[in-house]
Amino acid sequence: MRIFKEIQSIQNWCKEHKLQGRKIGLVPTMGYLHEGHLELVREAKRHCDIVVVSIFVNPTQFGAGEDFEVYPRDFERDTSLLERENADAVFAPTAEEMYLSDFSSWVEVTGEITTKLCGASRPGHFRGVTTVCAKLFNICLPDLAFFGQKDAQQVMVLEKMLTDLNFPLQIIRVPIVREADGLAMSSRNVCLDAEAREQALVLNRALGQAERAIKDGERDAARIKVLLREIIESSPRAEIDYAEIYDAYDLADIQQIDRKILMALAVKFGKTRLIDNRLVEV
Amino acid sequence: MRIFKEIQSIQNWCKEHKLQGRKIGLVPTMGYLHEGHLELVREAKRHCDIVVVSIFVNPTQFGAGEDFEVYPRDFERDTSLLERENADAVFAPTAEEMYLSDFSSWVEVTGEITTKLCGASRPGHFRGVTTVCAKLFNICLPDLAFFGQKDAQQVMVLEKMLTDLNFPLQIIRVPIVREADGLAMSSRNVCLDAEAREQALVLNRALGQAERAIKDGERDAARIKVLLREIIESSPRAEIDYAEIYDAYDLADIQQIDRKILMALAVKFGKTRLIDNRLVEV
Repeated sequence: MRIFKEIQSIQNWCKEHKLQGRKIGLVPTMGYLHEGHLELVREAKRHCDIVVVSIFVNPTQFGAGEDFEVYPRDFERDTSLLERENADAVFAPTAEEMYLSDFSSWVEVTGEITTKLCGASRPGHFRGVTTVCAKLFNICLPDLAFFGQKDAQQVMVLEKMLTDLNFPLQIIRVPIVREADGLAMSSRNVCLDAEAREQALVLNRALGQAERAIKDGERDAARIKVLLREIIESSPRAEIDYAEIYDAYDLADIQQIDRKILMALAVKFGKTRLIDNRLVEV
Repeated sequence: MRIFKEIQSIQNWCKEHKLQGRKIGLVPTMGYLHEGHLELVREAKRHCDIVVVSIFVNPTQFGAGEDFEVYPRDFERDTSLLERENADAVFAPTAEEMYLSDFSSWVEVTGEITTKLCGASRPGHFRGVTTVCAKLFNICLPDLAFFGQKDAQQVMVLEKMLTDLNFPLQIIRVPIVREADGLAMSSRNVCLDAEAREQALVLNRALGQAERAIKDGERDAARIKVLLREIIESSPRAEIDYAEIYDAYDLADIQQIDRKILMALAVKFGKTRLIDNRLVEV
């Protein structure tokens, strides 16, 4: 497995593989890999000849006062996990390599898709995500890029960017991977103390009960949102950032559940903010 | 010469050529081609195996009240000129093909480089330029893209975008092509009446005299700017938008001419706004 720290060298390496006609898969990550990330790598191995995993805790997608400094990192463990999955290359640049001191170009998706949910809670977050992903796409030249459905809004925003700006690649969405007890895998889960870890199960439980209510015939989005909130608030340490239902394609508001919808949650347990979601089709 | 109207078909065609190991050159234009454009095509033919010329009057780089509607167009003439230069393909999409009704993604270079000169006179102009060029680069997958030095600020902004966002291509700057009497070639020159056409010579004359003054030892930027203005204002119909001197690399302000500088002019003759510039190294 090759490890690259420099943009120029991995870009040349990827160009060479493209010239050989090889299909490149990219798995962008912020490291501290868990089973969810490894599932992305496995899916990439199934579809592509060459799999590149980027590991970069991207400063531009963190706001002031967010957890950039304390975001968990373990490069040694990450690379040994990726070796085991037969990833072909790791791209792990420094922040200085990715953002020169006079860096001033941004890729931004505007509109509801970036102003709702995490866009409302984390101003500038998606501008950081789209900018770094545009850079990673230009550097690694993937035919396919693999993202987890756990970050449902992120993948929607990136698909919009690809379509609008005609990037020559496609995104493959990979389903959420959960712990045995239902908690969605996240690098941030290690930040939870034992009590919060237990209470965090409420996210998946709320989504499951809401989904069941919809399958049982409930079509009123407002009532489902009340249900989500009631279940989450049964956990004393849960502090809701949002618990929303939107159109699954463009995050448009909906009153009646009459199409594919996204139920999306962001809940804080102390300083740790967790997200989870479910797509429901009626 | 192939003519493409659809993004998907030219993108596939270019991907195929890349797989064959061919070097692609892109010449982005707004059509109504003149000798300056053709020089870009010739330079592209010298460097590349496949030359694609895009013809697209890009609505997003025109402001309200600017000349988008009356910008000159002549597709038949353009394609016959390009046939003669042995261009390999023309990409001429409609505005609807390039901008779907829910289009909402933008590429933007921020800072002085886009807020001075044409950025000050034409708010949003460079955001339109960088967005459409990012799209064209993603669609046509060039190894090299060719731009005229006539649009000096545009090429600076695009080079900044390429560097910051790691686009896998390079820009080749091609010198300004002038009419026999010194007027910089521009598709907008046809909009000048005979008197304005005559008076428009003042742009090149002002740049020439200012360059001579610098070569003769003048180092005070303010005095050179006064000289530029005096010469231009000797033309009764010339209305100065700007006549400035900046650092040639990043458009930083300068007092002393002690490095490579850009002298840049934008002057209106009635409704027609012309630009011209000169790089001077001391």
